[in-house]
Amino acid sequence: MRTIDWSGDAVVMLDQTVLPHEVRSLTLTDVDALADAIRRLAVRGAPALGAAGALGVLLAMRQAEAEGWDEAALAAALDRLRRARPTAVNLAWGVDRVAARLPEGEAAVRAEALAVLDEDVAVNRAMGERGADLVETLCSGAGGSGLRLHTHCNAGGLAAVEVGTALEVVRALHARGHVERVYADETRPLLQGSRLTAWELERMGADYRVVVDGAGPSLIARGLVDAVLVGSDRIAASGDVANKIGTYPLALAAARSGIPFVVVAPESTIDPATPDGAAIAIEDRDGEEVLTWNGHRVAPAGAEAVNPAFDVTPADLVTAIVTERRVVRPATGERP
Amino acid sequence: MRTIDWSGDAVVMLDQTVLPHEVRSLTLTDVDALADAIRRLAVRGAPALGAAGALGVLLAMRQAEAEGWDEAALAAALDRLRRARPTAVNLAWGVDRVAARLPEGEAAVRAEALAVLDEDVAVNRAMGERGADLVETLCSGAGGSGLRLHTHCNAGGLAAVEVGTALEVVRALHARGHVERVYADETRPLLQGSRLTAWELERMGADYRVVVDGAGPSLIARGLVDAVLVGSDRIAASGDVANKIGTYPLALAAARSGIPFVVVAPESTIDPATPDGAAIAIEDRDGEEVLTWNGHRVAPAGAEAVNPAFDVTPADLVTAIVTERRVVRPATGERP
Repeated sequence: MRTIDWSGDAVVMLDQTVLPHEVRSLTLTDVDALADAIRRLAVRGAPALGAAGALGVLLAMRQAEAEGWDEAALAAALDRLRRARPTAVNLAWGVDRVAARLPEGEAAVRAEALAVLDEDVAVNRAMGERGADLVETLCSGAGGSGLRLHTHCNAGGLAAVEVGTALEVVRALHARGHVERVYADETRPLLQGSRLTAWELERMGADYRVVVDGAGPSLIARGLVDAVLVGSDRIAASGDVANKIGTYPLALAAARSGIPFVVVAPESTIDPATPDGAAIAIEDRDGEEVLTWNGHRVAPAGAEAVNPAFDVTPADLVTAIVTERRVVRPATGERP
Repeated sequence: MRTIDWSGDAVVMLDQTVLPHEVRSLTLTDVDALADAIRRLAVRGAPALGAAGALGVLLAMRQAEAEGWDEAALAAALDRLRRARPTAVNLAWGVDRVAARLPEGEAAVRAEALAVLDEDVAVNRAMGERGADLVETLCSGAGGSGLRLHTHCNAGGLAAVEVGTALEVVRALHARGHVERVYADETRPLLQGSRLTAWELERMGADYRVVVDGAGPSLIARGLVDAVLVGSDRIAASGDVANKIGTYPLALAAARSGIPFVVVAPESTIDPATPDGAAIAIEDRDGEEVLTWNGHRVAPAGAEAVNPAFDVTPADLVTAIVTERRVVRPATGERP
């Protein structure tokens, strides 16, 4: 099934908070329930959030009709949806793209929302092949028995409608028989790596190992990694890249060891309105995500945490950004 | 109480696997039980392992007498103890220092072992003051309402006999009223930061926040940290520093942002027999530490992990090493 889809009268999504041990879907007919699902990361990943924003407009329009909302109430609901999470530009992008069709009625809104989903699949498939070609070129010296790739968080099908971004490049390289090993950061605090990426790599049949987030940079320094591949939640006009917290250290390590650091993201992730990384709003999440585990407190009573959900990798550390249309090379001064 | 001590006829230690929720001590009269406690990290931290090695010889000698071991059996027991963990040089150092007194009998062995403990306290107290002076000098431009310090793993009293290393510098600066905020990495997989360092900072009364390991480098990049302070498990002759996995990314980030990266460790941690970082044996621990949480599996069935316990920070990223005798500046080419 798709990570997120339209059932005909509801948004249907995999509940990613219970993976990998349980495959459960959520059926949502209320736009605020959708915003809540986004906030608690039942659906996450920049491309999937674009789809959620798009479908949310369709949901809100139908709800407005059924419940007799006026225009202001509908606009307010869309605004709550748009702001459910601040860092990924795709959420607001999906909302705005479909909301532009509201004056044309439900059929137009439905068509636009479903087009966002179908395009996401097509776009990511194209990115996967382009990214695989690029990585093979960049790593042509690595050769041997295949590439050793490192990824962070989850940039797979679970982060999109059906086909991933960075993990789709891994899948394409694996399909070509060119992957020896994938290292997946567990990605604290919410473990999208050990829960979601591991689940996808397991189904892919790739050879992979989970590692703690602190281990990636030294695996790179020890010569065990040929390339780092990550997704992105927002790319500034400067080429600075926001992605899941813990991405920046991999970029630092890749630059020091002279291996490629490649960002795989659709054009919709590039935000020309954000001049540089300093202008990207970084979501601060509840410290309890860090201090508590499955309801079991880890830290002593009284402890507090800061819990930024994203970091910014400066453009000069980004070897390449791969989109569905092109390859940009920020480290050489090129701007997206 | 001390982290590890001699009761008169047994080794007594805090069981660090159950902190911070439970303060429980272990009383050990068997040298293999001590080796096991070391392996499962009931006692950990380079200086504390030196003390454990020292007391272990006293324990083994008494056990050999009580159980009628011959010299070969005693030597084998000491070898099992010495190799309980491979990376921290202090464990073997403590064993060898006290074992040299075995021919002189139990009183000499006891005196030597207890001297190791007392010296650890004195040495670390001296390091704390010297390190605090150094950090104040290095950060003299930071001024304002106090220093913002970042630390990794636990280099506190729990990593030593009673007085810590890097965290003793924090304590000394805090006692001088010069600390605004301490960031403590949670330190996956075993959470020595959120369990042990948080517990010590809580008792110290410092303002602190726990963060996931992936967050440190971006906090540094955002200008929120004035200096990074860590301990070490082995320092090579080149000045390369082995420390808990996740240390290297902090050094990379500190270098990029131009803030000091300071290692605080006793002279016994410097190993002239190890030429450089590449020659340091890195302990690979059980992948289940990464994949499982309190007996609850996180990753999907079939997932495997690699779990290196330490990484190596190259000398050129190390602003200073503070010992009880001196300050060495590897980043300027000085060798310890």
